[in-house]
Amino acid sequence: MSMATEKKTVGFIGLGIMGLSMAGHILDGGHDLVVFNRTKSKADDLLAKGATWAASPGEVAAVSDIVITIVGYPKDVEEVYLGNGGIVECARPGTILIDMTTSSPELATRIARLAEARGLAALDAPVSGGDVGAKAGNLAIMVGGDEKAYRAAMPIFDLMGGKIVNMGPAGAGQHTKMANQIAIASTMLAVGESLSYAAAAGLDQTALIEVIGTGAAGSFLLNGLGPKMVSGDYAPGFFVHHFVKDLNIALAEAARMRLDLPGLGLAKSLYDKLVADGFGEEGTQALYRLYTQLAEA
Amino acid sequence: MSMATEKKTVGFIGLGIMGLSMAGHILDGGHDLVVFNRTKSKADDLLAKGATWAASPGEVAAVSDIVITIVGYPKDVEEVYLGNGGIVECARPGTILIDMTTSSPELATRIARLAEARGLAALDAPVSGGDVGAKAGNLAIMVGGDEKAYRAAMPIFDLMGGKIVNMGPAGAGQHTKMANQIAIASTMLAVGESLSYAAAAGLDQTALIEVIGTGAAGSFLLNGLGPKMVSGDYAPGFFVHHFVKDLNIALAEAARMRLDLPGLGLAKSLYDKLVADGFGEEGTQALYRLYTQLAEA
Repeated sequence: MSMATEKKTVGFIGLGIMGLSMAGHILDGGHDLVVFNRTKSKADDLLAKGATWAASPGEVAAVSDIVITIVGYPKDVEEVYLGNGGIVECARPGTILIDMTTSSPELATRIARLAEARGLAALDAPVSGGDVGAKAGNLAIMVGGDEKAYRAAMPIFDLMGGKIVNMGPAGAGQHTKMANQIAIASTMLAVGESLSYAAAAGLDQTALIEVIGTGAAGSFLLNGLGPKMVSGDYAPGFFVHHFVKDLNIALAEAARMRLDLPGLGLAKSLYDKLVADGFGEEGTQALYRLYTQLAEA
Repeated sequence: MSMATEKKTVGFIGLGIMGLSMAGHILDGGHDLVVFNRTKSKADDLLAKGATWAASPGEVAAVSDIVITIVGYPKDVEEVYLGNGGIVECARPGTILIDMTTSSPELATRIARLAEARGLAALDAPVSGGDVGAKAGNLAIMVGGDEKAYRAAMPIFDLMGGKIVNMGPAGAGQHTKMANQIAIASTMLAVGESLSYAAAAGLDQTALIEVIGTGAAGSFLLNGLGPKMVSGDYAPGFFVHHFVKDLNIALAEAARMRLDLPGLGLAKSLYDKLVADGFGEEGTQALYRLYTQLAEA
């Protein structure tokens, strides 16, 4: 029997908009799925399709071959893994633990060390691709941790992801995600400022995106979020307050590595202002609101 | 006889690396070419192929149906157009003047006004695509100015460019190029900071570019200049000091429009430092030197 068809018991903790789609793919892949979520009602559809409910992260871990988590903040990750009755305490030796939350690289290495001491293997495996990628099962998955555990988890990763890469030891997945968010941060400034300048200069912003979007100034964000800025569509694809969480982690890691990233710092200060102004529940393209304010001031 | 095959006398002023290729395409297109350049020897190949030398910008203008300029700085543009014995003074009524230098939108509108008063039409038509695009004849050409003159010049633009757009009245071409450079400015920070973080975190930078380059963090610059940063290849595609010229124009225009663009300001301060450190003759990807210095400090 190949790895790809071996039936596992997979525990899944965190049934937000991403987690729900990802857990559904695992169930559809023929595995036994055991779930826990703070709000139980979110699990209803999965339970109706055959998943099993467990009363706590520890109870999920105790019965699973592989435990996947995708929760909110690093403090949530720390609690479900390292808290009393948590995953590391309750998992059976040999279990593979996979945190897919975007979280702190430092925490990821700490969990991996404590897990290893109990005969477990922990991978950090944050994703990109958003709710669309989660639903389509083609997320990019950036993995850090033990190569053997990575290979063993691959059939499960394959159900959720398209591009799946082991970027190095524990923490490397989170570091990769941070490098991704750092690139996004200043590129958002690039898009907002270019469109803001265009508006002030009286240019047709849509024509501008078309002209510059395929050349050296082009980016996924200019072509994808630029038109939303132009039309004032600030509906969330990726929430401002989630992005601020990520930027906080990135800045803390950069500071720990004594790395000065002024573009990241600037982006963080602008997104903080956006949250302070009451726009944390909008999409990251709402950064453009600040440039509109500046122009009107 | 269609516009595309009507033979014109085209004047061309400014035979730098871009201008030489562009003028060559016009000659190859069957038009009469009259050239002037500060350093005459740069014209040797064109003269050998049949172009005619003129002793000054004014002498070029006096015999041409269309005059094209692509010189260094706004002060050079001002001199060749508005100086004594310059283009606006010497061109015959009906002549179309096209400045393809990346220059000041304010200057472009001033030239257009003065040209119109003398029965001339002036277009601002800066390009993107670099020496590669100039050689291949597929530059993006961003045009501002009178629609009728734009249409009349189209057969000549077609010889040099691929994507050619009239973005609005005089100055709109330069404004479009500025919006392009503003988008590039902060995206360069994005690429430099992401790769700098990756190096500090011990990630394989080439693998990083591959993983994040096709997702939301992806950009033409990450995929094109990122690998050069990684390998320390700072050979110029686009010179730092030319980029600083453009950023200065963009900042001056933004200030004139009372527009606060903090990402642009930050990029300008970093590129100024790069010039002060002696790297003005390198390519714009040399920005990465600053992050290496910061990491080593």
